[in-house]
Amino acid sequence: MYGLIGKMRAKPGEREALIGYILESSGTMPGCLSYIVARDPGDADAIWVTEVWDKEESHKASLALPAVQAAIAKARPIIAGFDSHVVTQPVGGFGLDRG
Amino acid sequence: MYGLIGKMRAKPGEREALIGYILESSGTMPGCLSYIVARDPGDADAIWVTEVWDKEESHKASLALPAVQAAIAKARPIIAGFDSHVVTQPVGGFGLDRG
Repeated sequence: MYGLIGKMRAKPGEREALIGYILESSGTMPGCLSYIVARDPGDADAIWVTEVWDKEESHKASLALPAVQAAIAKARPIIAGFDSHVVTQPVGGFGLDRG
Repeated sequence: MYGLIGKMRAKPGEREALIGYILESSGTMPGCLSYIVARDPGDADAIWVTEVWDKEESHKASLALPAVQAAIAKARPIIAGFDSHVVTQPVGGFGLDRG
């Protein structure tokens, strides 16, 4: 499996709108086993996204999906930056939707 | 919802055993919506655990569960340390087992 843990930053006051765009496109992505969006309670502009995919190629392919492309276009103007981006190798757990 | 993103470190050569103990106890924890264990491909001793709970109290209560206590006892001797521990506020996504 292929995992990502990322922290991104919305422009001030735009976090909820950005969360909305991210969630909008996260519903049906082939190969996606988990995709969780969270606020950082200690930082009003920060968003954490933790992802698990069956393989890296599925993640790459998702970036070309029309719904994802549309969300990225709407989100880009209100993204202030990306603080951290960790690639992981998930091995198991609970809440991995094996479809 | 209540979320945690943590990076821990196994003693050298003990990562797989530590992953085994963590997974052993992660199966049935009341209020747990997601619990994913992953290797860090860039660091042979590092493990990432990303968790989502319905509320903070459920996470706290899980630490007293016999299976979790047993896993902690077995794991403690092979844990080298905890590198990072982030509390998050999950708002949605995919792969949250609402039970």
